[in-house]
Amino acid sequence: MSQSNVVFATPHSTGREALLSTAAEISADFAKRAAELDREGLPPLKEIIRLKNSGLLNALHASQIGGGGLNWVDALKLVRIIARGESSLGQLIGYHFVNSQYIYWAIEDDARAHALGVETVAKNYYWGAAVNPRDPGLELTRRGNTYALNGRKSFSTAAHISDYINANAALDGKIASFAVPTNRPGYVTNDDWDNIGQRLSDSGSVEFRDFPVYEEDFIALPSEPDAPPPVLSTFNTPLIQLVFVNFYLGTAEGALEAALDYVRSTTRPWITSGVGKAADDPYILERVGEFAAALKASVALADSAAQAVEAALSCGREVTARERGEAAAEAYAAKVHATNVSLDITSRVFELTGARSTASHYRFDRFWRNVRTHTLHDPVFYKAKEVGEFVLNGKIPAVSLYS
Amino acid sequence: MSQSNVVFATPHSTGREALLSTAAEISADFAKRAAELDREGLPPLKEIIRLKNSGLLNALHASQIGGGGLNWVDALKLVRIIARGESSLGQLIGYHFVNSQYIYWAIEDDARAHALGVETVAKNYYWGAAVNPRDPGLELTRRGNTYALNGRKSFSTAAHISDYINANAALDGKIASFAVPTNRPGYVTNDDWDNIGQRLSDSGSVEFRDFPVYEEDFIALPSEPDAPPPVLSTFNTPLIQLVFVNFYLGTAEGALEAALDYVRSTTRPWITSGVGKAADDPYILERVGEFAAALKASVALADSAAQAVEAALSCGREVTARERGEAAAEAYAAKVHATNVSLDITSRVFELTGARSTASHYRFDRFWRNVRTHTLHDPVFYKAKEVGEFVLNGKIPAVSLYS
Amino acid sequence: MSQSNVVFATPHSTGREALLSTAAEISADFAKRAAELDREGLPPLKEIIRLKNSGLLNALHASQIGGGGLNWVDALKLVRIIARGESSLGQLIGYHFVNSQYIYWAIEDDARAHALGVETVAKNYYWGAAVNPRDPGLELTRRGNTYALNGRKSFSTAAHISDYINANAALDGKIASFAVPTNRPGYVTNDDWDNIGQRLSDSGSVEFRDFPVYEEDFIALPSEPDAPPPVLSTFNTPLIQLVFVNFYLGTAEGALEAALDYVRSTTRPWITSGVGKAADDPYILERVGEFAAALKASVALADSAAQAVEAALSCGREVTARERGEAAAEAYAAKVHATNVSLDITSRVFELTGARSTASHYRFDRFWRNVRTHTLHDPVFYKAKEVGEFVLNGKIPAVSLYS
Amino acid sequence: MSQSNVVFATPHSTGREALLSTAAEISADFAKRAAELDREGLPPLKEIIRLKNSGLLNALHASQIGGGGLNWVDALKLVRIIARGESSLGQLIGYHFVNSQYIYWAIEDDARAHALGVETVAKNYYWGAAVNPRDPGLELTRRGNTYALNGRKSFSTAAHISDYINANAALDGKIASFAVPTNRPGYVTNDDWDNIGQRLSDSGSVEFRDFPVYEEDFIALPSEPDAPPPVLSTFNTPLIQLVFVNFYLGTAEGALEAALDYVRSTTRPWITSGVGKAADDPYILERVGEFAAALKASVALADSAAQAVEAALSCGREVTARERGEAAAEAYAAKVHATNVSLDITSRVFELTGARSTASHYRFDRFWRNVRTHTLHDPVFYKAKEVGEFVLNGKIPAVSLYS
Repeated sequence: MSQSNVVFATPHSTGREALLSTAAEISADFAKRAAELDREGLPPLKEIIRLKNSGLLNALHASQIGGGGLNWVDALKLVRIIARGESSLGQLIGYHFVNSQYIYWAIEDDARAHALGVETVAKNYYWGAAVNPRDPGLELTRRGNTYALNGRKSFSTAAHISDYINANAALDGKIASFAVPTNRPGYVTNDDWDNIGQRLSDSGSVEFRDFPVYEEDFIALPSEPDAPPPVLSTFNTPLIQLVFVNFYLGTAEGALEAALDYVRSTTRPWITSGVGKAADDPYILERVGEFAAALKASVALADSAAQAVEAALSCGREVTARERGEAAAEAYAAKVHATNVSLDITSRVFELTGARSTASHYRFDRFWRNVRTHTLHDPVFYKAKEVGEFVLNGKIPAVSLYS
Repeated sequence: MSQSNVVFATPHSTGREALLSTAAEISADFAKRAAELDREGLPPLKEIIRLKNSGLLNALHASQIGGGGLNWVDALKLVRIIARGESSLGQLIGYHFVNSQYIYWAIEDDARAHALGVETVAKNYYWGAAVNPRDPGLELTRRGNTYALNGRKSFSTAAHISDYINANAALDGKIASFAVPTNRPGYVTNDDWDNIGQRLSDSGSVEFRDFPVYEEDFIALPSEPDAPPPVLSTFNTPLIQLVFVNFYLGTAEGALEAALDYVRSTTRPWITSGVGKAADDPYILERVGEFAAALKASVALADSAAQAVEAALSCGREVTARERGEAAAEAYAAKVHATNVSLDITSRVFELTGARSTASHYRFDRFWRNVRTHTLHDPVFYKAKEVGEFVLNGKIPAVSLYS
Repeated sequence: MSQSNVVFATPHSTGREALLSTAAEISADFAKRAAELDREGLPPLKEIIRLKNSGLLNALHASQIGGGGLNWVDALKLVRIIARGESSLGQLIGYHFVNSQYIYWAIEDDARAHALGVETVAKNYYWGAAVNPRDPGLELTRRGNTYALNGRKSFSTAAHISDYINANAALDGKIASFAVPTNRPGYVTNDDWDNIGQRLSDSGSVEFRDFPVYEEDFIALPSEPDAPPPVLSTFNTPLIQLVFVNFYLGTAEGALEAALDYVRSTTRPWITSGVGKAADDPYILERVGEFAAALKASVALADSAAQAVEAALSCGREVTARERGEAAAEAYAAKVHATNVSLDITSRVFELTGARSTASHYRFDRFWRNVRTHTLHDPVFYKAKEVGEFVLNGKIPAVSLYS
Repeated sequence: MSQSNVVFATPHSTGREALLSTAAEISADFAKRAAELDREGLPPLKEIIRLKNSGLLNALHASQIGGGGLNWVDALKLVRIIARGESSLGQLIGYHFVNSQYIYWAIEDDARAHALGVETVAKNYYWGAAVNPRDPGLELTRRGNTYALNGRKSFSTAAHISDYINANAALDGKIASFAVPTNRPGYVTNDDWDNIGQRLSDSGSVEFRDFPVYEEDFIALPSEPDAPPPVLSTFNTPLIQLVFVNFYLGTAEGALEAALDYVRSTTRPWITSGVGKAADDPYILERVGEFAAALKASVALADSAAQAVEAALSCGREVTARERGEAAAEAYAAKVHATNVSLDITSRVFELTGARSTASHYRFDRFWRNVRTHTLHDPVFYKAKEVGEFVLNGKIPAVSLYS
């Protein structure tokens, strides 16, 4: 997305309460247009501008440089709040949070990281990434003092939206990591994201065609493929998993809220129910109670896991692999739980709303389609297994881009 | 649908085995085009002609008049088989079975019923209905020796497809029941069916505008609104519920089969699974086993309930309300079970197929959308309650168009 | 058990209907004493005599030799019926059915098998076995023309009750199979069965101390440990698994019946329910409906699987490994389903009966304890995996004493 | 229990951390003897003395009067910790917490409440209650300046153990509430608690035979039966429900911990698993992960609900019915969730441990029996309905001794 689209219409709100209430307000607006946006399935350019203008994108940056100064516990709540209104936008703000904070964890030169953070806040960059390990990788070729990046990534969330991206590529048998703006020549986004859910997540393929990369883009020295990365730089995985958790739960909360509105306003009482309105039906009430209890529990675990990861992260470069692993196990337990709960609720809210709520124009199926699609990112049974290994055998999760 | 569309291209197969294998063959063809048909969401005119040409529509009529001579146990298997290929077509053939057999149960003059059956088989009529009790009803007005039908039905499955329909309407404070061809003037089908599932079921609204009805169309004398109908004429409800059961289960079978094909051909083994292909993954195998066991159990109950209803039905006009009620309770238990199982499996097959199977062109979400939509026809919790009343208190279900 | 205990007080009933109704009558009597029997936890000597006197033990033997002439579909229903009254007795009659029919499958000399069948019916033997492969095995030592059996089996169901047993033991590096009466010297039953469930199943350890075995006891030539057994002789496994299925389901049916009796007679309506009796509570009714539907489905699958195994078995020595394997896969699907359903229902019936039903004297927990204990015989997840291998990859279950 | 049994062997630990670690230590000791205690099923007199000596009973009293100074969030964690070791003891300490704090909420004269608190801490009283509203009530009769209490309570948790109890009784058509020591004449405990679970909870019947009550025992003026009680005095219900939540979850944690120990030490790997030890079995690991995730979520919700109730409670006599109701709804959501999770896990841990773990001497069934028994205190479906009423319709739960 061209950075010139960004209009700073209003002064940013920053304080914690202000950011949370701004998010709630924006989320409510997204909710009103969510069915339409889902139908269109386009990259949500306007909505991202709205997020930029609100100051939400910079919520995690230090207030000294104009950021919101939030910690991850609150930032993940922002993800959840935005996802209540529209699931892909929850995903997009969450991915950005992780990708834009990654510079602080991975760039060992704090001054450089700081400078890039300052630029990010000042220019209100949206950060993406091109690092999916299930794809054949990208390649860097030396061209004198510079490099040319070539290759293709099948799924690149926020492809059109990203102003800056983290990427890695093969270079002379090693892996080079770098951060680059997307407005250089040779960044080609294909319009090939068309999936049943997360339709606004802008997750199509991206190609790099002789895309120029400079030495100063590198965020660390090229490393051997099997070299263990510094522990701090591996927090992107538990945190992106917590982003998943929170936008799944936000989506389920949005589904339940939409269903309750519909029950109150539209659902007719069943003919043999003996009640005058659907909202008094004993079976509907029981299910609402069960759904609410399950959601609250999953949200409480999400918050508790966020605190664990935040605590480990706050050790900075002193953090040990064990501390990171124990916190990650909490996050993965939350992932397992949120997956189960969000799938169940987004499918079952129809039991509350009834037959007529299946009319296409409501698009009430989008909630299930959204969580159904993204919960397949990595198999829930292997996440459960990792949690089991930790709980039963004390083994921390092996570090990868999936765990 | 204009009856002249019906081309009798091939001699009908009739024997039981022939009908079952014809259904399987047609279903396999439907499966190949199901994603495309779902995308279009149009009344499946060609597919209904295919069913007509195959002789399947007349499977339940006596072989003496050119029908297939099947009983309901087998006819419901046909519904299941067709639904494996495409869910709406399973619904449509099932609805037709009930609506076209209704004449034998409701018309007390056996000769008249027989004549209408002969005509149905000879002309290969598709039968629909306009009797939903949740809608404001239709009205008949006397015009000399004839009647004019006026009014609107919000949801009329097979609206465009039906050659003949069962209908009822208010007449002088009573309820008149009649069967009429749809090619009379004043039968207006609106193209307003657009729901998230069962998109080919052609369930839009229908209007009658001075639609002529004749004395000889009446299938019984007009009755008081509260008069209990003859028991035999109330078998449409347990049988339509078994139609639901069988097309839910057929849809779930279709979903599982499609998922297994995909796992064998396309799903990549998970990176930490240690297996060479997804079909050897222990968690995928366990889930396949669980899904298959659940489906087989629900199918076995569906068949067992069909036998119970068939046995009661075979008593003819001697059948008692108690016998009908006990058989109906079996059918409703099958309904409760099939609802749970088909929703669970159609959502969870994605755990087998993985992330890339959410690409829109597969439309693998259609299975869940289909069962999610129709399982709301009447609330599953009230069906469970009816079963509970029978099991705990010996009360048979109160007769209505829902039970 | 000394065979002289067996008193033939009444002529045996034999016909199919007579056997089924006899079983129902005996089961109802067992139900009345089941709480007391569970408390005592002793080998049910009197109850086995009752089964012997009723002719039920010989239900599967040919009517020409005085048996009941039933097939396995009906015999497994007898297991289910007896288990409704008392779970261990269902297990015991089922184990006997398999062990006593094993002679027809494993003894290649039909005349010998016939003779042993005649003796079994005439003397009304209860058949057990000592063949658990998870234990260290037994050993046979040659002593001139005879053999001495030594060793210990940790769990030997029907240890005290068995009149005759199938056993296998190591002999010169091979495996010898034989059938022997238990009233020879050196058969030592220890009173060490004390588990939380199936407390009457008499499954304590057995020792053989120089127990004499003769050449004519051998039911086949000793075989290499890895030699595949004749296919027919391997039907004991799918059939014993179906015995499990049916006594799990019978136990769950017994639990539900007991709970419904209690709800009708004793449970007080909840204070905020607005109903005059618990049997009218909407939530209780819904749960009864759900439980009944689940049970009916599992029973229908059990019967359908029994038909599949019976069909394969009826091919006799012509049966192929594939036919046996496909039928076994049906049985194992039923096993998976019955395990889930019986555990769920036996735990949840308390939601119907309420707080006071937890008084120890009712021993309503026995139903759950019974299925909880035996469903661990082999892990349900590996059974599901075997079903998955068949459904997804077409692999039939590997033959073992567990599958 | 005679108060002279209480020996103050060691100085009390008090600080928050000290109390939590003391609880963990005592709980571990209880765990070692829990199977034996369950078998005996006697009032746990020694264990209560242990709790008294540890200072845990006074954890909620102000540190100024020698209490532990904990808030309810921490006190409920103590309940959970103790229940890990033995479920009834978790129940007993939790009941005591509510009953002993009730004086501060119900006695309007703060000086009197304070004095009774001081006496409670000084003498280390265990507090019980006799207020179950489902029973026919007790009656007070005037005898000059004093009263005689007569009547019977069917279920009185901590009957033998209680040093002091809260009670209410009919008096001249009103309801009188009072707090009395149990060592007056006429307090008769019957040894009739014999239930399948919570066997140490000492919940047998109690009779009052001319038990003397004095004016100064009254904790409030007698009130009309229908008069709404002061809001603060109704916090016993959400708090006792949170006690339930926490001892259910503690019991489930104890079950999982015991199962994991057994898997590590004793369970044999399944023969077809291909792994060398059970702790490496993929299905066991997945289940451990699922169970841990579910438990963590329920615990997180329990803590979050405790914070909500603590926050409302901390408003003191200013608290509104709405504030109390909103907090109570959180507690009841936690109740619904903990009920589901604790039942599921305590039944399914056997899937981890396998067949041999059903030997009676382990008494691994006690975990399920314990939660199965107490979760029937009030029907979970009506609790879910109350939560649904709040979430869907904004109605706060009607105040009663159940909600």
